[in-house]
Amino acid sequence: MATIDANPPSGTRDFLPAEVSRRERAFATIRAAFDAHGFEPLDTPAFERLEVLTGKYGEEGDQLIFKILRRGEHEATGEADLALRYDLTVPLARVVARYGSQLAMPFKRYHIAPVWRADRPGKGRYREFFQCDVDTVGSDSLVADAATLQAVADVLDRLGLAGFRIQLNSRKALHGLIEAYGVPDELEASALVALDKLDKIGADKVAAELVERGVPSSAVETLAADLGAADLTDRVRERLAGTERGRDGLAEVDRVLELVGDVPGGAVGFAPVLARGLTYYTGPVFEVVHDGLRATIAAGGRYDGLIGMFQGQDVPATGGSLGIERILLLLEQQQQSASHGPDVMVTVMDDAAAADALALAQRLRGHGFSADVYAGSGKLGKQFKHADRRAARVALIRGAEERAAGTVAVKELASGEQTTVAEADLADHVGRLLGR
Amino acid sequence: MATIDANPPSGTRDFLPAEVSRRERAFATIRAAFDAHGFEPLDTPAFERLEVLTGKYGEEGDQLIFKILRRGEHEATGEADLALRYDLTVPLARVVARYGSQLAMPFKRYHIAPVWRADRPGKGRYREFFQCDVDTVGSDSLVADAATLQAVADVLDRLGLAGFRIQLNSRKALHGLIEAYGVPDELEASALVALDKLDKIGADKVAAELVERGVPSSAVETLAADLGAADLTDRVRERLAGTERGRDGLAEVDRVLELVGDVPGGAVGFAPVLARGLTYYTGPVFEVVHDGLRATIAAGGRYDGLIGMFQGQDVPATGGSLGIERILLLLEQQQQSASHGPDVMVTVMDDAAAADALALAQRLRGHGFSADVYAGSGKLGKQFKHADRRAARVALIRGAEERAAGTVAVKELASGEQTTVAEADLADHVGRLLGR
Repeated sequence: MATIDANPPSGTRDFLPAEVSRRERAFATIRAAFDAHGFEPLDTPAFERLEVLTGKYGEEGDQLIFKILRRGEHEATGEADLALRYDLTVPLARVVARYGSQLAMPFKRYHIAPVWRADRPGKGRYREFFQCDVDTVGSDSLVADAATLQAVADVLDRLGLAGFRIQLNSRKALHGLIEAYGVPDELEASALVALDKLDKIGADKVAAELVERGVPSSAVETLAADLGAADLTDRVRERLAGTERGRDGLAEVDRVLELVGDVPGGAVGFAPVLARGLTYYTGPVFEVVHDGLRATIAAGGRYDGLIGMFQGQDVPATGGSLGIERILLLLEQQQQSASHGPDVMVTVMDDAAAADALALAQRLRGHGFSADVYAGSGKLGKQFKHADRRAARVALIRGAEERAAGTVAVKELASGEQTTVAEADLADHVGRLLGR
Repeated sequence: MATIDANPPSGTRDFLPAEVSRRERAFATIRAAFDAHGFEPLDTPAFERLEVLTGKYGEEGDQLIFKILRRGEHEATGEADLALRYDLTVPLARVVARYGSQLAMPFKRYHIAPVWRADRPGKGRYREFFQCDVDTVGSDSLVADAATLQAVADVLDRLGLAGFRIQLNSRKALHGLIEAYGVPDELEASALVALDKLDKIGADKVAAELVERGVPSSAVETLAADLGAADLTDRVRERLAGTERGRDGLAEVDRVLELVGDVPGGAVGFAPVLARGLTYYTGPVFEVVHDGLRATIAAGGRYDGLIGMFQGQDVPATGGSLGIERILLLLEQQQQSASHGPDVMVTVMDDAAAADALALAQRLRGHGFSADVYAGSGKLGKQFKHADRRAARVALIRGAEERAAGTVAVKELASGEQTTVAEADLADHVGRLLGR
């Protein structure tokens, strides 16, 4: 056979064992946290009918959909009838339309799964990547918004990402802010796009952009002064308190803050110029940043206009999305690579020793240890090397002599120390070496 | 928006929460078992370059590959450049070709993941379904074959499928059998196809088919007499012992049986006419059947000619595949639907009670319970109904009175019994109700 490019397709990744273990461990932690908060897991097919996906992500998004060719006699048409899912929100909307009455409403679901986008691959940008969404459908109560924040915070804390900050705002408060600072209503969307960049470009550049966008200089002056101030939040609070719209918005933000309460491992506070996707979100919005890691690691909000897309009606919904690929990368950098190897590698001296080695491994598994048996053809030295590569903690050696004496030689691989123990004491001894 | 078909695409499934929980639980059990046996997890992209997949599954298989249309300016060509993976073996072969030197050989890997085939959907036949493969690459030792059987048996036992039988044979023993019964060598493949049907169609029909396939009547007569006998295995053993080929085959089977030893939860034995895919397997082969469930639930064997397909050389490999979709179905039928709901549903009496309810749930989570807070708009009766639908075990009620008194009303949902307890005793009380 001609040699073939053995790399995974452009923009996709093979996950070798150490990485799968790390990812699975993180997924298990996330699942356990969401379960603990009463969210339920959902899973949907990798592909959807093409018409379910097209027209949902804007023109640019539609270009990035992986389409699947029709099959059999229809293949020659060159047409597609299916497409790989592009996100987890459209599948959720389809599921709500399909199974509405079977779902206990409010429906609280999480979904951890790959999505596919034919984006130009780049550093940290993949064509196959995981999303991790948590949403509550069918509730217009701020209790649902607060419960989302509590769950997301708990996930981050359990993942070992303490030190995060949840920045909270609301569409209502933004609407009030626009009024309070005297920005003309028709410039609201445009002004918010500029304001949202405060963290990235600073107060001066935001002010310049506001002017460019046609915001009256009187409004820009007041805004610029407050945006650059250390007590920005207090200043905005004061302004919002001065108008009815502003008070409404502030009340919504403060109600969510009250409902959320303290979040272990992090902090939550009002972020008065956080805007996020204006056409998408309809209520509270949030972003979770980790200063130490200088990254946004989760975001979300209320989006009452989307989930009902297949039913032709609004269905209230609020939720969030963990930046799971970024989080996995941070965890990898932050943590020492945890061992993923077997506890014990049983060496095989010769053919006569093989059955005994397999049986020994079985017995150790009965005591809760993971145990591998060397199945290659190397001598003892090569077998120890293999045990090291597999990151095993302990190797067992048992030749004819040990078998006759009912003993096992136990080698701790890190120290190289070797002890011979009676077979009956083996599990206890291994347990001690592993610190169990 | 026009109404749209909200069903998942033909041949695919949406997995609602109870089912995802059940599947995830099974996957976790399988992963833990394979980990305990020293197998390592691998994951690869959902799609591969088209040329990686084509020509690997025969003409019929190739027809069933889901192909992905080229993108951007190339979309109009109607050509495909990628395709959804059809199995987990070709991706393994690609990974071995790509990362060979980075993998600790022998490389023991498992892979639990969906594959896609454009088959005609039918009862139990899907276009998206999970496979669960376990393989050892780079070892020609029978220790690897035996370790596969031990691991597969342990998985089945841990899944609660005790009562399985592992039927073991080997290509060598089949070769010997053909000789021992006087079937001409050139009819070996043809005769084995007929013999392999013994369990399904019985001895008489197998004999008739052997005649049809041109096997001499003398050989068919002897075979038919043995095939119908209760002591078939002993009779074949005796015949095999009479030729060198036969003795070689028998020795291989017996060596694997010796290495495997006892398997908790099941039995393992020689199955002299088990043939399986002859063009695929090159050494020991096995099939795991469950008599009570009347199903084949796993199968595999040694296949030294496949994994090296991208390297142009033979790479020894042996492994097995769990019929995971069938196993999941059996588990569903066998088991009472295990509860997947939250331990506790905290009701919300009114707006003033919401923050307290959310905090109460947080505190219970701190004690290891899962707790949901009702985020809908219903009265208490509706909230209890919701708690029932969510399969919660306990509901908490806390109005102004209870809050003032520092107590919580705890309702066990199955019995309807309600007790008021001091807040400080809540976790203990809930623990008792849940039997923890």
